[in-house]
Amino acid sequence: MRITALAGGIGGSRFLRGLLRAVPDARVTVIGNTADDITLHGLHVSPDLDTVMYTLGGGIEESQGWGREGETFAVASELAAYGAEAQWFTLGDRDLATHLIRTRMLAAGYPLSAVTEALCDRWQPGVRLLPMTDDRVETHVVVAADLEDEASGATEKAIHFQEWWVRLHAEVPARRIVLVGADQAKPAPGVLEALESADVILLPPSNPVVSIGPILAVAGVRDAVRAAGAPVVGLSPIIGGSPVRGMADAALTAIGVPTTAAGVAELFADLLDGWLVDTVDAEAVSAVEAAGVRCAAVPLWMTDVDAAAAMARAALDLAEEVRAR
Amino acid sequence: MRITALAGGIGGSRFLRGLLRAVPDARVTVIGNTADDITLHGLHVSPDLDTVMYTLGGGIEESQGWGREGETFAVASELAAYGAEAQWFTLGDRDLATHLIRTRMLAAGYPLSAVTEALCDRWQPGVRLLPMTDDRVETHVVVAADLEDEASGATEKAIHFQEWWVRLHAEVPARRIVLVGADQAKPAPGVLEALESADVILLPPSNPVVSIGPILAVAGVRDAVRAAGAPVVGLSPIIGGSPVRGMADAALTAIGVPTTAAGVAELFADLLDGWLVDTVDAEAVSAVEAAGVRCAAVPLWMTDVDAAAAMARAALDLAEEVRAR
Repeated sequence: MRITALAGGIGGSRFLRGLLRAVPDARVTVIGNTADDITLHGLHVSPDLDTVMYTLGGGIEESQGWGREGETFAVASELAAYGAEAQWFTLGDRDLATHLIRTRMLAAGYPLSAVTEALCDRWQPGVRLLPMTDDRVETHVVVAADLEDEASGATEKAIHFQEWWVRLHAEVPARRIVLVGADQAKPAPGVLEALESADVILLPPSNPVVSIGPILAVAGVRDAVRAAGAPVVGLSPIIGGSPVRGMADAALTAIGVPTTAAGVAELFADLLDGWLVDTVDAEAVSAVEAAGVRCAAVPLWMTDVDAAAAMARAALDLAEEVRAR
Repeated sequence: MRITALAGGIGGSRFLRGLLRAVPDARVTVIGNTADDITLHGLHVSPDLDTVMYTLGGGIEESQGWGREGETFAVASELAAYGAEAQWFTLGDRDLATHLIRTRMLAAGYPLSAVTEALCDRWQPGVRLLPMTDDRVETHVVVAADLEDEASGATEKAIHFQEWWVRLHAEVPARRIVLVGADQAKPAPGVLEALESADVILLPPSNPVVSIGPILAVAGVRDAVRAAGAPVVGLSPIIGGSPVRGMADAALTAIGVPTTAAGVAELFADLLDGWLVDTVDAEAVSAVEAAGVRCAAVPLWMTDVDAAAAMARAALDLAEEVRAR
């Protein structure tokens, strides 16, 4: 069975780990979000790709769901002593080696997809991990201007997603979310093929706006998902009106979508054949089905790998049900 | 008193620390060797500049004379796990932050001299530290070809100084030492002025071939030392026919200079007004003086800062003696 999944960071990675436990023989291709990539201290950081790679490769810090297990912070502490900027985004020492290799390979002319493949040579994540694009796409968040910006007449400003998410904890309201470069970006080699040839396409419970959204925004990807012959099944990242983790509500509010399991389904309605909501959201099933999307309510808390595997099985079951209709 | 010193790494730095203790009110400018700079993992490493900066700034690992105190190696260990090249040159985590900032500033267009000044803002070494040049000069060592090189018809090959020094421990005989770029390099801003305006010019007991040699090889520097009005006094890095530390004998042999206190004096004979040899080399005094260089024998083992300070005082005394003649 060929499964193609779109994935952001923590939620996507934990779901994928469950998927591999549920169907160890499946050939899984993961299309990873790169729109929250950021250059820090001259290093190209790809947080979502790395979270997938570390989680599936056994190198993740389990307690937080991102970064390397047993991480240390000697470099970051020294950078701070030098007064370097962007101290709000702390790079761990172990993690930094990944960024050094990535940066050097990119500088040597390798596309991000080739770099990712080289890094995965070490981690053996058990999936084929593709960046959504080799081109630069960056999520920017438009927020109200600071007092100092207002002095220049500006009433709002765009900041990098990571600055909004990590430095400001998404506490400053987002007026708009702009995916810089998405419409000119080409899907990375293998992305469209993985969608076309898939037996099932999965949308894990990743942030719909800033993780799944940018992948679908790469020119041609949303169309390819829509055109694919395979059933497309997603899992709600919203349970009981709140994000499972992270601050997806702030991002959904920015694009005018209610923070509900049904609201996210509607965002993807043109793509979805099936949608899983948590059992607490069972009342949403009929609304989703009214929009023409087969929907079921199952437990969606990824408390451990077994729970994630059960979710993956439920998603694949729903895909079979859709296919059989 | 304005003192200008040429300096390599460990020996130069320890001498300079003694100099600052001996004459704390002196205005000291240090012209540092950059010909053993190397790019590793995409980072610009300046070992000699950093050794001066860390030693005088209180950040050096005292037991080895280079690198940061309390250093850790998480990044290097991860780079090895990725199979990265150049594992023979281990970058410590703390040290790496310095290289990250240097690399980023260079990439942004700052010359190495400006970068060095910015790094010294943190370390406050108590001297003005100038790279010998902002241009690229690299010491290459010509050695016999390997068997695999011979297959292509080559009988010798040039390798980066660090590969010869660190990876091969200078155990492979050097046929020639080539200072790539030295004749086109311009002295960094302030270098010629520091030589012209100095009251005393000092050549610390650094490696004469690969530390002091490249500084003098930068176009115009040797002439500026020769033309300077100030007495030029050097300290022998050779004691009793052996280098105080490092493998200066291998480098001297490569250029056909005997590994003796008098041999090194002869190498600098066109520049020197005074030369200090160790008490065990007292018999060299008359030979050096016969070449027109005032010479004295004093203890030259830098066993601690006080010993280095005594050496600095002896060098300054010799300078005064030369000046008075």
